[in-house]
Amino acid sequence: MDFLRHKDFLIRKAESKDLNSIVKLLADDPLGEKRENYQQPLPESYVQAFERISSDTNQELMVLEHVSGTVIGTLQLTFIPYLTHQGSIRAQIEAVRIKKEFRGQGLGDFLFRWAIQRAQDQGARMLQLTTDKQRPEAIEFYERLGFKASHEGMKLALLPKNDV
Amino acid sequence: MDFLRHKDFLIRKAESKDLNSIVKLLADDPLGEKRENYQQPLPESYVQAFERISSDTNQELMVLEHVSGTVIGTLQLTFIPYLTHQGSIRAQIEAVRIKKEFRGQGLGDFLFRWAIQRAQDQGARMLQLTTDKQRPEAIEFYERLGFKASHEGMKLALLPKNDV
Repeated sequence: MDFLRHKDFLIRKAESKDLNSIVKLLADDPLGEKRENYQQPLPESYVQAFERISSDTNQELMVLEHVSGTVIGTLQLTFIPYLTHQGSIRAQIEAVRIKKEFRGQGLGDFLFRWAIQRAQDQGARMLQLTTDKQRPEAIEFYERLGFKASHEGMKLALLPKNDV
Repeated sequence: MDFLRHKDFLIRKAESKDLNSIVKLLADDPLGEKRENYQQPLPESYVQAFERISSDTNQELMVLEHVSGTVIGTLQLTFIPYLTHQGSIRAQIEAVRIKKEFRGQGLGDFLFRWAIQRAQDQGARMLQLTTDKQRPEAIEFYERLGFKASHEGMKLALLPKNDV
Protein backbone atom coordinates (compact mmCIF):
# COMPACT_ATOMS: atom_id res chain seq x y z
CA MET A 1 0.00 0.00 0.00
CA ASP A 2 2.01 2.96 -1.20
CA PHE A 3 -0.79 5.50 -1.11
CA LEU A 4 -4.02 5.78 0.85
CA ARG A 5 -7.24 7.75 0.42
CA HIS A 6 -9.45 8.79 3.34
CA LYS A 7 -12.46 11.09 2.99
CA ASP A 8 -11.06 14.28 1.49
CA PHE A 9 -7.40 13.37 1.93
CA LEU A 10 -4.84 11.35 0.03
CA ILE A 11 -1.42 10.13 1.21
CA ARG A 12 1.03 9.77 -1.66
CA LYS A 13 4.73 9.93 -2.46
CA ALA A 14 6.11 13.47 -2.71
CA GLU A 15 6.98 14.74 -6.19
CA SER A 16 9.29 17.61 -7.05
CA LYS A 17 6.28 19.94 -7.51
CA ASP A 18 5.53 19.43 -3.76
CA LEU A 19 8.95 20.53 -2.53
CA ASN A 20 7.95 24.14 -1.94
CA SER A 21 4.89 23.16 0.12
CA ILE A 22 6.85 20.65 2.18
CA VAL A 23 9.61 23.11 3.11
CA LYS A 24 6.95 25.69 4.02
CA LEU A 25 5.35 23.16 6.37
CA LEU A 26 8.72 22.28 7.95
CA ALA A 27 9.48 25.97 8.55
CA ASP A 28 6.06 26.82 10.01
CA ASP A 29 6.73 25.52 13.51
CA PRO A 30 8.38 26.97 16.66
CA LEU A 31 11.42 24.68 16.34
CA GLY A 32 11.41 24.57 12.54
CA GLU A 33 11.42 28.33 12.02
CA LYS A 34 14.80 28.54 13.79
CA ARG A 35 16.49 26.04 11.52
CA GLU A 36 14.77 26.19 8.13
CA ASN A 37 15.13 28.82 5.43
CA TYR A 38 11.91 29.05 3.47
CA GLN A 39 12.19 31.68 0.72
CA GLN A 40 11.63 32.05 -3.03
CA PRO A 41 13.40 30.71 -4.92
CA LEU A 42 13.97 27.84 -2.56
CA PRO A 43 17.63 27.48 -1.46
CA GLU A 44 19.48 24.97 -3.64
CA SER A 45 20.28 22.79 -0.59
CA TYR A 46 16.61 21.73 -0.40
CA VAL A 47 16.51 20.86 -4.10
CA GLN A 48 19.65 18.74 -3.78
CA ALA A 49 18.29 17.03 -0.67
CA PHE A 50 15.04 16.23 -2.48
CA GLU A 51 17.05 14.58 -5.28
CA ARG A 52 19.06 12.51 -2.76
CA ILE A 53 15.85 11.37 -1.06
CA SER A 54 14.03 10.57 -4.31
CA SER A 55 16.89 8.48 -5.70
CA ASP A 56 17.27 6.38 -2.52
CA THR A 57 14.93 3.39 -2.48
CA ASN A 58 15.09 3.26 1.34
CA GLN A 59 13.47 6.69 1.63
CA GLU A 60 9.76 7.36 1.29
CA LEU A 61 8.96 11.04 1.54
CA MET A 62 5.17 11.33 1.70
CA VAL A 63 2.65 14.11 1.50
CA LEU A 64 -0.91 14.35 2.76
CA GLU A 65 -2.96 16.15 0.12
CA HIS A 66 -6.38 17.71 0.48
CA VAL A 67 -8.87 17.01 -2.33
CA SER A 68 -8.39 20.65 -3.40
CA GLY A 69 -4.80 19.76 -4.32
CA THR A 70 -3.21 21.52 -1.33
CA VAL A 71 -0.43 19.70 0.53
CA ILE A 72 -1.30 19.90 4.23
CA GLY A 73 1.02 17.29 5.76
CA THR A 74 4.29 15.44 5.33
CA LEU A 75 6.33 12.61 6.79
CA GLN A 76 9.53 10.79 5.82
CA LEU A 77 9.74 7.03 6.29
CA THR A 78 13.20 5.41 6.13
CA PHE A 79 14.08 1.71 6.01
CA ILE A 80 17.41 0.69 7.56
CA PRO A 81 18.89 -2.82 7.35
CA TYR A 82 20.55 -4.07 10.55
CA LEU A 83 22.10 -7.27 11.87
CA THR A 84 20.43 -6.79 15.28
CA HIS A 85 17.12 -8.54 16.06
CA GLN A 86 18.31 -11.46 13.92
CA GLY A 87 18.94 -9.40 10.83
CA SER A 88 15.95 -7.11 10.81
CA ILE A 89 14.88 -4.08 8.83
CA ARG A 90 13.85 -1.13 10.94
CA ALA A 91 11.62 1.65 9.81
CA GLN A 92 12.14 5.16 11.06
CA ILE A 93 9.98 8.26 10.88
CA GLU A 94 11.24 11.83 10.76
CA ALA A 95 10.13 15.25 9.58
CA VAL A 96 6.44 14.94 10.45
CA ARG A 97 4.20 17.98 10.04
CA ILE A 98 0.50 18.72 9.73
CA LYS A 99 -0.52 22.22 8.66
CA LYS A 100 -1.79 24.22 11.67
CA GLU A 101 -5.33 24.81 10.39
CA PHE A 102 -5.79 21.08 9.83
CA ARG A 103 -4.74 19.83 13.26
CA GLY A 104 -7.13 18.22 15.71
CA GLN A 105 -9.07 16.30 13.02
CA GLY A 106 -7.25 12.99 13.32
CA LEU A 107 -5.07 13.58 10.25
CA GLY A 108 -1.81 12.89 12.15
CA ASP A 109 -3.35 9.63 13.25
CA PHE A 110 -4.34 8.86 9.65
CA LEU A 111 -0.80 9.58 8.42
CA PHE A 112 0.77 7.43 11.16
CA ARG A 113 -1.58 4.53 10.61
CA TRP A 114 -0.47 4.56 6.99
CA ALA A 115 3.21 4.57 8.09
CA ILE A 116 2.73 1.71 10.56
CA GLN A 117 0.98 -0.40 7.93
CA ARG A 118 3.57 0.46 5.30
CA ALA A 119 6.46 -0.45 7.62
CA GLN A 120 4.81 -3.77 8.41
CA ASP A 121 4.13 -4.49 4.72
CA GLN A 122 7.81 -3.89 3.97
CA GLY A 123 8.83 -6.46 6.60
CA ALA A 124 10.08 -4.06 9.28
CA ARG A 125 9.97 -5.46 12.81
CA MET A 126 10.38 -2.13 14.53
CA LEU A 127 9.21 1.39 13.82
CA GLN A 128 11.12 4.12 15.60
CA LEU A 129 11.38 7.86 15.85
CA THR A 130 12.84 10.50 18.09
CA THR A 131 10.85 13.45 19.32
CA ASP A 132 12.11 16.59 21.01
CA LYS A 133 11.40 16.61 24.76
CA GLN A 134 10.14 20.18 24.19
CA ARG A 135 7.10 18.71 22.40
CA PRO A 136 5.15 16.94 25.21
CA GLU A 137 1.95 16.85 23.12
CA ALA A 138 3.81 14.95 20.40
CA ILE A 139 5.07 12.39 22.92
CA GLU A 140 1.50 11.80 24.11
CA PHE A 141 0.34 11.45 20.52
CA TYR A 142 2.95 8.74 19.82
CA GLU A 143 2.13 6.94 23.07
CA ARG A 144 -1.53 6.79 22.06
CA LEU A 145 -0.40 5.05 18.86
CA GLY A 146 1.46 2.44 20.93
CA PHE A 147 5.03 3.80 20.86
CA LYS A 148 7.04 3.37 24.08
CA ALA A 149 9.55 6.03 25.20
CA SER A 150 12.00 3.26 26.09
CA HIS A 151 15.11 4.99 24.76
CA GLU A 152 16.96 8.26 25.07
CA GLY A 153 17.27 10.04 21.73
CA MET A 154 20.78 11.48 21.78
CA LYS A 155 22.02 14.11 19.32
CA LEU A 156 25.41 15.59 18.57
CA ALA A 157 25.50 18.65 16.32
CA LEU A 158 28.47 18.58 13.93
CA LEU A 159 30.29 21.55 12.50
CA PRO A 160 30.02 22.20 8.76
CA LYS A 161 32.90 20.43 7.02
CA ASN A 162 34.53 23.66 5.81
CA ASP A 163 34.69 25.13 9.31
CA VAL A 164 36.62 22.20 10.77
CA MET B 1 39.04 8.42 6.57
CA ASP B 2 37.36 5.05 6.15
CA PHE B 3 39.64 3.12 8.48
CA LEU B 4 41.78 4.07 11.47
CA ARG B 5 44.69 2.47 13.28
CA HIS B 6 45.45 3.07 16.97
CA LYS B 7 48.06 1.19 18.95
CA ASP B 8 47.07 -2.48 18.64
CA PHE B 9 43.65 -1.83 17.11
CA LEU B 10 42.29 -1.15 13.66
CA ILE B 11 38.82 0.13 12.68
CA ARG B 12 37.77 -1.09 9.24
CA LYS B 13 34.69 -1.96 7.20
CA ALA B 14 33.20 -5.35 8.03
CA GLU B 15 33.66 -8.14 5.50
CA SER B 16 31.60 -11.32 5.20
CA LYS B 17 34.29 -13.28 7.08
CA ASP B 18 33.53 -11.06 10.13
CA LEU B 19 29.82 -11.81 10.27
CA ASN B 20 30.12 -14.63 12.76
CA SER B 21 32.19 -12.55 15.18
CA ILE B 22 29.83 -9.58 14.91
CA VAL B 23 26.70 -11.61 15.66
CA LYS B 24 28.50 -13.23 18.60
CA LEU B 25 29.26 -9.76 19.98
CA LEU B 26 25.66 -8.61 19.49
CA ALA B 27 24.35 -11.68 21.32
CA ASP B 28 26.79 -11.43 24.25
CA ASP B 29 24.92 -8.76 26.17
CA PRO B 30 22.01 -8.77 28.69
CA LEU B 31 19.60 -7.20 26.18
CA GLY B 32 21.14 -8.83 23.11
CA GLU B 33 20.96 -12.38 24.39
CA LYS B 34 17.15 -12.11 24.55
CA ARG B 35 16.77 -11.08 20.94
CA GLU B 36 19.67 -12.58 18.99
CA ASN B 37 20.16 -16.18 17.89
CA TYR B 38 23.86 -16.95 17.71
CA GLN B 39 24.43 -20.54 16.59
CA GLN B 40 26.40 -22.51 14.01
CA PRO B 41 25.70 -22.38 11.18
CA LEU B 42 24.52 -18.81 11.54
CA PRO B 43 20.79 -18.35 10.78
CA GLU B 44 20.22 -17.29 7.19
CA SER B 45 18.49 -14.08 8.31
CA TYR B 46 21.87 -12.69 9.44
CA VAL B 47 23.52 -13.56 6.14
CA GLN B 48 20.74 -11.86 4.19
CA ALA B 49 20.92 -8.79 6.44
CA PHE B 50 24.68 -8.59 5.91
CA GLU B 51 24.12 -8.59 2.15
CA ARG B 52 21.50 -5.84 2.41
CA ILE B 53 23.85 -3.72 4.53
CA SER B 54 26.90 -4.29 2.31
CA SER B 55 25.06 -3.37 -0.89
CA ASP B 56 23.66 -0.11 0.54
CA THR B 57 26.07 2.80 0.15
CA ASN B 58 24.40 4.62 3.07
CA GLN B 59 25.43 1.86 5.50
CA GLU B 60 28.89 1.51 7.02
CA LEU B 61 29.14 -1.57 9.21
CA MET B 62 32.49 -1.37 10.98
CA VAL B 63 34.61 -3.68 13.08
CA LEU B 64 37.30 -2.96 15.63
CA GLU B 65 40.05 -5.55 15.14
CA HIS B 66 42.87 -6.42 17.51
CA VAL B 67 46.32 -6.83 15.95
CA SER B 68 45.93 -10.58 16.55
CA GLY B 69 43.11 -10.59 13.98
CA THR B 70 40.30 -10.94 16.52
CA VAL B 71 37.21 -8.76 16.07
CA ILE B 72 36.49 -7.17 19.45
CA GLY B 73 34.06 -4.40 18.57
CA THR B 74 31.44 -3.29 16.08
CA LEU B 75 29.26 -0.32 15.15
CA GLN B 76 26.93 0.54 12.27
CA LEU B 77 26.93 4.06 10.86
CA THR B 78 24.02 5.08 8.62
CA PHE B 79 23.62 8.20 6.51
CA ILE B 80 20.08 9.49 5.95
CA PRO B 81 19.17 12.34 3.59
CA TYR B 82 16.51 14.73 4.91
CA LEU B 83 14.89 18.01 3.89
CA THR B 84 15.01 19.28 7.49
CA HIS B 85 17.87 21.52 8.65
CA GLN B 86 17.94 23.04 5.15
CA GLY B 87 18.40 19.75 3.35
CA SER B 88 20.90 18.01 5.58
CA ILE B 89 22.36 14.54 5.80
CA ARG B 90 22.15 12.96 9.23
CA ALA B 91 24.37 10.22 10.48
CA GLN B 92 23.03 7.62 12.86
CA ILE B 93 24.76 5.01 14.99
CA GLU B 94 23.29 1.68 16.01
CA ALA B 95 24.44 -1.78 17.05
CA VAL B 96 27.49 -0.75 19.09
CA ARG B 97 29.36 -3.40 21.02
CA ILE B 98 32.80 -3.82 22.60
CA LYS B 99 33.80 -7.32 23.74
CA LYS B 100 33.54 -7.60 27.55
CA GLU B 101 37.23 -8.34 28.22
CA PHE B 102 38.24 -5.25 26.24
CA ARG B 103 36.04 -2.70 27.99
CA GLY B 104 37.43 0.08 30.19
CA GLN B 105 40.44 0.77 27.94
CA GLY B 106 39.01 3.66 25.95
CA LEU B 107 38.17 1.54 22.90
CA GLY B 108 34.55 2.67 22.81
CA ASP B 109 35.85 6.21 22.83
CA PHE B 110 38.25 5.36 19.99
CA LEU B 111 35.44 3.81 17.92
CA PHE B 112 33.14 6.80 18.51
CA ARG B 113 35.79 9.36 17.70
CA TRP B 114 36.21 7.58 14.37
CA ALA B 115 32.44 7.69 13.79
CA ILE B 116 32.16 11.40 14.66
CA GLN B 117 35.02 12.26 12.30
CA ARG B 118 33.62 10.06 9.56
CA ALA B 119 30.16 11.61 9.85
CA GLN B 120 31.68 15.08 9.64
CA ASP B 121 33.84 14.12 6.65
CA GLN B 122 30.72 12.88 4.85
CA GLY B 123 29.02 16.24 5.37
CA ALA B 124 26.56 15.20 8.09
CA ARG B 125 25.36 18.06 10.31
CA MET B 126 23.99 15.81 13.02
CA LEU B 127 24.99 12.50 14.52
CA GLN B 128 22.26 10.70 16.41
CA LEU B 129 21.55 7.47 18.21
CA THR B 130 19.04 6.00 20.60
CA THR B 131 20.08 4.15 23.71
CA ASP B 132 17.94 2.00 25.98
CA LYS B 133 17.08 3.76 29.25
CA GLN B 134 18.08 0.48 30.91
CA ARG B 135 21.73 1.27 30.05
CA PRO B 136 22.57 4.30 32.26
CA GLU B 137 26.33 3.77 31.84
CA ALA B 138 25.91 4.02 28.06
CA ILE B 139 24.01 7.30 28.41
CA GLU B 140 26.86 8.73 30.53
CA PHE B 141 29.38 7.53 27.96
CA TYR B 142 27.55 9.33 25.13
CA GLU B 143 27.17 12.48 27.23
CA ARG B 144 30.92 12.55 27.81
CA LEU B 145 31.35 12.51 24.03
CA GLY B 146 29.10 15.57 23.74
CA PHE B 147 25.74 13.98 22.89
CA LYS B 148 22.66 15.61 24.46
CA ALA B 149 19.66 13.53 25.56
CA SER B 150 17.34 16.13 24.04
CA HIS B 151 14.86 13.69 22.52
CA GLU B 152 12.73 10.74 23.49
CA GLY B 153 13.61 7.62 21.52
CA MET B 154 10.26 6.01 20.81
CA LYS B 155 9.83 2.45 19.54
CA LEU B 156 6.89 0.46 18.27
CA ALA B 157 7.38 -3.29 17.81
CA LEU B 158 5.65 -4.60 14.70
CA LEU B 159 4.26 -8.06 14.18
CA PRO B 160 5.93 -10.29 11.59
CA LYS B 161 4.18 -9.83 8.27
CA ASN B 162 2.85 -13.38 8.12
CA ASP B 163 1.15 -13.09 11.52
CA VAL B 164 -0.89 -10.06 10.57
